[in-house]
Amino acid sequence: MGCNNVIRKMSSSSSHVDNGSIAHHLPSIPSVSSFLQVVHRHRISPWPAVSMEEAMTSIENSMPEGRCKFIPATLAKPGHVLVSQVVARSNVPEYHTSTKDGYAVIAADPSPTRRVVGVQVAAPTTPDAHTLQLGECIRVCTGSILPHGADAVVMVENTILVQHDGNEEGVIEVKTTVKKGQDVRLPGADIKEGDVLLEAGTVLGPAEIGILASNARRDIEVYRRPRVCVMSTGNEILDCTMDEQLCPGQVRDSNRPQLMALFRSRGFKPIDAGIVPDTREHLLGGLITAFRYSSVVVTTGGVSMGEKDLMKEVLEKDLKFKIHFGRVWMKPGLPATFATGMVDDLPCAVFALPGNPVSSFVCAELFAVPALRKMGGYLKPHHTLIKVTLANSLKLDSRPEYARAILREPSASSASSSSSDSSSTVFLPTAYTTGTQCSSRLLSMAGGNLLLRLPARSSECTELPAGTVIDALVVGAL
Amino acid sequence: MGCNNVIRKMSSSSSHVDNGSIAHHLPSIPSVSSFLQVVHRHRISPWPAVSMEEAMTSIENSMPEGRCKFIPATLAKPGHVLVSQVVARSNVPEYHTSTKDGYAVIAADPSPTRRVVGVQVAAPTTPDAHTLQLGECIRVCTGSILPHGADAVVMVENTILVQHDGNEEGVIEVKTTVKKGQDVRLPGADIKEGDVLLEAGTVLGPAEIGILASNARRDIEVYRRPRVCVMSTGNEILDCTMDEQLCPGQVRDSNRPQLMALFRSRGFKPIDAGIVPDTREHLLGGLITAFRYSSVVVTTGGVSMGEKDLMKEVLEKDLKFKIHFGRVWMKPGLPATFATGMVDDLPCAVFALPGNPVSSFVCAELFAVPALRKMGGYLKPHHTLIKVTLANSLKLDSRPEYARAILREPSASSASSSSSDSSSTVFLPTAYTTGTQCSSRLLSMAGGNLLLRLPARSSECTELPAGTVIDALVVGAL
Repeated sequence: MGCNNVIRKMSSSSSHVDNGSIAHHLPSIPSVSSFLQVVHRHRISPWPAVSMEEAMTSIENSMPEGRCKFIPATLAKPGHVLVSQVVARSNVPEYHTSTKDGYAVIAADPSPTRRVVGVQVAAPTTPDAHTLQLGECIRVCTGSILPHGADAVVMVENTILVQHDGNEEGVIEVKTTVKKGQDVRLPGADIKEGDVLLEAGTVLGPAEIGILASNARRDIEVYRRPRVCVMSTGNEILDCTMDEQLCPGQVRDSNRPQLMALFRSRGFKPIDAGIVPDTREHLLGGLITAFRYSSVVVTTGGVSMGEKDLMKEVLEKDLKFKIHFGRVWMKPGLPATFATGMVDDLPCAVFALPGNPVSSFVCAELFAVPALRKMGGYLKPHHTLIKVTLANSLKLDSRPEYARAILREPSASSASSSSSDSSSTVFLPTAYTTGTQCSSRLLSMAGGNLLLRLPARSSECTELPAGTVIDALVVGAL
Repeated sequence: MGCNNVIRKMSSSSSHVDNGSIAHHLPSIPSVSSFLQVVHRHRISPWPAVSMEEAMTSIENSMPEGRCKFIPATLAKPGHVLVSQVVARSNVPEYHTSTKDGYAVIAADPSPTRRVVGVQVAAPTTPDAHTLQLGECIRVCTGSILPHGADAVVMVENTILVQHDGNEEGVIEVKTTVKKGQDVRLPGADIKEGDVLLEAGTVLGPAEIGILASNARRDIEVYRRPRVCVMSTGNEILDCTMDEQLCPGQVRDSNRPQLMALFRSRGFKPIDAGIVPDTREHLLGGLITAFRYSSVVVTTGGVSMGEKDLMKEVLEKDLKFKIHFGRVWMKPGLPATFATGMVDDLPCAVFALPGNPVSSFVCAELFAVPALRKMGGYLKPHHTLIKVTLANSLKLDSRPEYARAILREPSASSASSSSSDSSSTVFLPTAYTTGTQCSSRLLSMAGGNLLLRLPARSSECTELPAGTVIDALVVGAL
């Protein structure tokens, strides 16, 4: 296909741009109020740049509620969040149990040798008729129920077989002294009936799934994993599955794939809302379609000062949403926008992020991920902060900046060579920034697992020297 | 069902224990050499307890090779590992591009006002016929290709509209000085053709997926995600989906669910190999079946000194595997066993872990996870180590111990109150152990994201005081 008139082509055939997206379900386009002529546009942004704290607070106060469901406990998966606490239904173990392979004995038994009168392996068993007598022992395994009358276990390593018939043990000698209760696990030693096993708000991981499995609980109430529609906007954006050859002015869409992957890797359910052209009709139609699939939509592009930056107008004038903020005093992502409103009587939210790939990525991480975590029931939805030492000096921007960086483990040499105050930082991990921090340079995200929280430049401080200790948000696996 | 004779019932009906597992595909049981009589068993383990370093080295040297495949770049998912490096196919951007919403101008133009002679939005475009002249400008957006003749961009905020026809802009005034190249992104500024975008061994995350999408690369070679069969062993083990009521001596199987979840959450493909009873025939049959699905099998139970602990014998005598280690001098998990051999001419490996839920979990994390990561192409398969401050004192064991703990962010108060040497640890995160560290007490895993590496007890040091700085393995999300 040639490159002439591609705008018109893309507009009329957006349903073919991406077959995996929901774009082909676009409804009939609602009419929108007349287009704001370019001569009447704002030449200075009318949106105050709010602080990060203000931005986070308005998100926290305005996000839609999360939803819950019951699932069989055996279908619990890592990432599920408990709505209510889980209480132990029974003791673990339920009976006195051997913690060693050896012999169940009577501790006070004075005889140095014991007759092996039976075997109690770890297996389902009926209550035993025999009660252990002085001079006797019963062979047991780790996990065996302690026989009646026994009050201690001697591990096999501390015994000698002194008599046998070539087939079964006859008499053993106990080489050590025996204390009552030794190597015996009491009923409820691990878990007592009624104990709180998992608190409300617990994020299930492998260990918590094991705990649920051990408890015979039939079902649990968990938060639904939040769904989130991801939409790219812009006439210049080409789906990355399309032709290899770009027309001049076209840009391959990396925002949708990376944000879909980001949300998926954080445990949410991303939905592909496709690429929507820069007209109010298309943007409105695209958003309304997306809200049929999810109460949260994340868009990229169209939020800055260009004549095709129509997203804020669509949100405010066409959707009648409240824009909580239209700019944030941070970098990268100054024009980041957050709005909420009702669609079909349901509360909905839009994170309208800048189109630059790094800005959209960092803003999705900073704003959308904690918001979705909160919807998903996380008690601590925010990123963990750790202290790190800067490997290299960093120039400060007029805005507070989130610099992409990679954590390296602390080592004596790097700490002493890069640290200005080695006594306080010798044990701290070192953060290496990922090259040029230009907001279009997605390469600066590669391998990053930290966002360094750099303060804004001041007259006293324009640069942080290597060795400075600063806060970093953990945004990837360490 | 009653509890009598449950052993025999479980043996003959193991195929019904768990419908989701592969156990119902059990092949005809191969014959095994005659059962070792209990009177001839070892009373002291014949297996030397190797050090953690030796254990890790033999795993590293003996694991089967990972396998690779080509996939379309658009199907790359977080966790995929690149076999070979990815090189940029073209410059990003391909043309001189505006980084601001504003006007493309000639920097050396002395005129304070410029006629707006055209518009270049961010959109597919044909090469422009017009070459910008002195006194002219062209309106551009972020991402617009710079028009011919222009060499700088003035952002809209730094301009005034001085003349228009009510519909289209006529003349603007530039309020600032203009530097050549200002707000223009050069071709290749972000990525140059031929640049290495992603190195071999890169673990793909959301950012890397965005980088691949921006590069129009058709396919990439990645490591296959390792598959791993997870098998529980023991006559006393009941599938956790079964009856709520346990017979005396039965134990609910929490090991399989937790290890399946562990491996899944680490990006591998776990396969449920069911519960296998404690006979050599069943164990051998279960392993042979499992190896049809995966070259790595992780089992729990049957590796200690009990008379039903037959796994090592099955591995060595029946499967003819080489047991690289049969005990490791660590806690929890002393009897952890690792063996490799050939099955159907393919190299295979078994991690035969102890049955206690905490031991199996910690050993799977310490031994199997790095081994599978290495098979999966990770260049750094081992856990990240960080330094942490102990919140509470910890008694040391005769063996080096891996204690489960939770990281808390550093705070001035906790650091100063718990630290014995606040100058060196004031910035360090604090690790809180998760209660009684008994190896059967799975509750001690809940919420844990660290394994503290505690040294073995010595005559000089039997306890680490609160405030001690030690190494911790990161095993969960921070």
